[in-house]
Amino acid sequence: MHMYFCHAQASQRQKAAAPTQPDPDDPLREQYGDTPLVQSRTQSGEKYYQISELSPELSGQKVLLRGRVHNVRGKGKSCFLVLRQQTGTVQAVLFVDDKTVSRGMVKYTSAIPKESIVDISGEVHVPQEPVAGCTCSQVELKAMSVKCVSRAAPLPFELADASRKEEDLQREDAQFATVTQDTRLENRWIDLRTPVNQAIFRVQSAVCQLFREALLAEGFQEIHTPKLIAGASEGGASVFRLDYMGREGCLAQSPQFYKQMAICSDMARVFELGPVFRAEKSFTHRHLCEFTGLDLEMTINEHYNEVLDVLDRLFVYMFDGIKSRCAAEVKAIQEQFPSEPLAYLPKTLRIPFEEGMRLLQEAGFEPDPLGDLTTELERNLGKIMKEKYNTDFYILYRYPLAVRPFYTMPDPEDARYSNSFDVFIRGEEIISGAQRVHDAALLTERAQVHEIPLESIQSYINAFKFGAPPHGGFGVGLERVVMLFCGLDNIRKTSLFPRDPKRLTP
Amino acid sequence: MHMYFCHAQASQRQKAAAPTQPDPDDPLREQYGDTPLVQSRTQSGEKYYQISELSPELSGQKVLLRGRVHNVRGKGKSCFLVLRQQTGTVQAVLFVDDKTVSRGMVKYTSAIPKESIVDISGEVHVPQEPVAGCTCSQVELKAMSVKCVSRAAPLPFELADASRKEEDLQREDAQFATVTQDTRLENRWIDLRTPVNQAIFRVQSAVCQLFREALLAEGFQEIHTPKLIAGASEGGASVFRLDYMGREGCLAQSPQFYKQMAICSDMARVFELGPVFRAEKSFTHRHLCEFTGLDLEMTINEHYNEVLDVLDRLFVYMFDGIKSRCAAEVKAIQEQFPSEPLAYLPKTLRIPFEEGMRLLQEAGFEPDPLGDLTTELERNLGKIMKEKYNTDFYILYRYPLAVRPFYTMPDPEDARYSNSFDVFIRGEEIISGAQRVHDAALLTERAQVHEIPLESIQSYINAFKFGAPPHGGFGVGLERVVMLFCGLDNIRKTSLFPRDPKRLTP
Repeated sequence: MHMYFCHAQASQRQKAAAPTQPDPDDPLREQYGDTPLVQSRTQSGEKYYQISELSPELSGQKVLLRGRVHNVRGKGKSCFLVLRQQTGTVQAVLFVDDKTVSRGMVKYTSAIPKESIVDISGEVHVPQEPVAGCTCSQVELKAMSVKCVSRAAPLPFELADASRKEEDLQREDAQFATVTQDTRLENRWIDLRTPVNQAIFRVQSAVCQLFREALLAEGFQEIHTPKLIAGASEGGASVFRLDYMGREGCLAQSPQFYKQMAICSDMARVFELGPVFRAEKSFTHRHLCEFTGLDLEMTINEHYNEVLDVLDRLFVYMFDGIKSRCAAEVKAIQEQFPSEPLAYLPKTLRIPFEEGMRLLQEAGFEPDPLGDLTTELERNLGKIMKEKYNTDFYILYRYPLAVRPFYTMPDPEDARYSNSFDVFIRGEEIISGAQRVHDAALLTERAQVHEIPLESIQSYINAFKFGAPPHGGFGVGLERVVMLFCGLDNIRKTSLFPRDPKRLTP
Repeated sequence: MHMYFCHAQASQRQKAAAPTQPDPDDPLREQYGDTPLVQSRTQSGEKYYQISELSPELSGQKVLLRGRVHNVRGKGKSCFLVLRQQTGTVQAVLFVDDKTVSRGMVKYTSAIPKESIVDISGEVHVPQEPVAGCTCSQVELKAMSVKCVSRAAPLPFELADASRKEEDLQREDAQFATVTQDTRLENRWIDLRTPVNQAIFRVQSAVCQLFREALLAEGFQEIHTPKLIAGASEGGASVFRLDYMGREGCLAQSPQFYKQMAICSDMARVFELGPVFRAEKSFTHRHLCEFTGLDLEMTINEHYNEVLDVLDRLFVYMFDGIKSRCAAEVKAIQEQFPSEPLAYLPKTLRIPFEEGMRLLQEAGFEPDPLGDLTTELERNLGKIMKEKYNTDFYILYRYPLAVRPFYTMPDPEDARYSNSFDVFIRGEEIISGAQRVHDAALLTERAQVHEIPLESIQSYINAFKFGAPPHGGFGVGLERVVMLFCGLDNIRKTSLFPRDPKRLTP
């Protein structure tokens, strides 16, 4: 019978210069060497410890751990290996004594490449001095067995270089190797192992949980709307088109049409987390061709303030939640990329668009009172708001109608304006929302004003013909929330495998 | 200033033959008529009641409700209107007395089309007999004001017809209008309002929460992987291709490659809920071109049994959770579409593929011992298992290697088999999983055996070169879980807006 693992392991081993198997004459040869491929051969059920479980109470006890070789340093008869599990590290030490540790074992261990996966068993030991540079500083391991489970090839960059503080890199006398963003992204599976990246994606996961928790508590239900649709949902320019079984299909640029259809289907409050696709040739720090949308839509009784009330409670809950649940992660991010903590108010500030324009004018800018805000004006308004109200997070509402999508409800008093809003963090727009047009005739009229071909949105318009409740909602990009909450400078840092006009791999 | 709502409402009103505005000479004219477009004009903050809040304790109190006209019947000087909110219904009654209710008001109310959205305020009243046919049977409303918020156009089908029990429709003397699946799907925003559909999508939402709750409690973290990728992840035949900024891109057929890359990135346990795309020309009751994948991937210490242990706890938690949290929803589904409740064991049965083949042979079938199971054989094996072990839910493991994807770990003892499994509900496969190949050399070799062009999966293979932990995982389709848990006969019933080879709208 052909045994796959033998062949594969052998071919891999030939490449490595370092010893991968013990000296056959070594009496301690059972205690080190590469393991056969872990292939569900047996199941001993032996406990594998987490570094976080280790403490002086376990002193003298034998434990088994699997992790990566974060660092290894052999010096004659001794070897110091730092084992890493995610962001946790512990030191394992080997001293040749010919009873538990042989020369061959030290030689073998010293030559294991960084980032390889190893199984180490050893005795928990309390050192005289705390171990410097390891997260587990109170105990170390006296290694009794070192087995390599998966060898790493030469690394394209050192994790230490990818983990350096921005401030250190920018020092005049800095002599570190720099790791460019492209190199990181090309080798994302290594880049993601740095403490800051481990933290960022834990925060990202927490944001999703917080978003859903808050909304479920407010009576929302989760929906999943199609990403393959017949017509562009947010305008035709930035849509990915594809062949769908012989007809043209589009990738949804938002769940807009479908979350509104859910409202017309008597799902009174709905939310969705899912990918949205934008074929925009934007090379900014804040645009991606694919990102994760957090969207909600809800019926309103009278006023879109009801949506803003939900938004306000939701985001304050999320910000509070990140701070309390992800304190260690936020600290890790701050260490590499320092920024001011986000300032936000217990009740989010809401100011009319017109008032925002007035504040900008007072500060010497010349915004178009019925146009959209440029990125630069948004940033400056953010500074003004921070100074005036001490908040990085606020709502600007009643935008000019002309700059909003066709499905936006016009303002009842002045049709130059609309029942819409944007929300900003640190001077950057993250949320866009509005009351929507729920009247099929008005919706048709508005689509015509925007010169949208009616046949491409006919089923959307039809949805409002059979009794449609007044409603509103908003959408926000997960990656932007995480980027701006954490004060990061590029959205590629908060996307697991970012997609931009130049990047489709890995 | 141009007022949008006037124009739109007026044009809509012209179409309706029924009175939309009160008789100007009626002293009670303020109490009925169509409202102006709800446009965030004012915000009185008046409480809108939910039907579920109504009870005899509120007797004599005036309440305001918004809902749909489920049914309305005018008879001379009286009118009975059934108001619906999602699945709840309450009766509102009007009797002409010229003090609180006028002839004009009864005429107006009687003519409101079914499914229109109305605001009704009235006095809570305890009738002598419970109201038959309403979910709220203990009280009714003496309507004092009836205002139509959004008028429904003539309906393509009656909700009552779309809500009939299967058994009634199949009676020999049945004389009901039938609503075909296509008619339903073409008008999904109406179809989704039936009690059974309201229930199905509440169950679907609950399944998502239960899935995440169970996994978060087991130390998993949520990830979001790209749906736009460079190469087909599950074979080239059934992939949607598109132009990605001048190069060819694909829509991910699963998050397989990327959840494994997350494992290589030190995220030890990850899950994802997201859309997956299959360009398959399958017209079965169980295939969609887009569905919601529930996926997980986790490191293992020794054996893929560790994955099965997680799977077992997860699904028992989910099934228990649906039963306890969605009892009313499951009952509503059962009423229209009766089926046996799902039988499952506290600890899920696991049998080897070979044993499954033996059982089929014993029952007179002739399965290919190293081939895949046909849908019919799966169904028959399901029957055998149900009879033998009284379970509709079981795991079949150690599938032939040849029928599994190239990234599946071969069996260590016999390379004709693999470290893989499928899981079945009611004789239909819902879950597919395995230990994965974590060795880059073996992975390359396996891809070559499957004749997969290496250049299309190079970045995937590269991810395993820098130390890769042993790992495994599985994926399951949300729509299939809901369909099979609820004993439904077609996956289009559990997809909000289903996509199949013929359907891209609405």
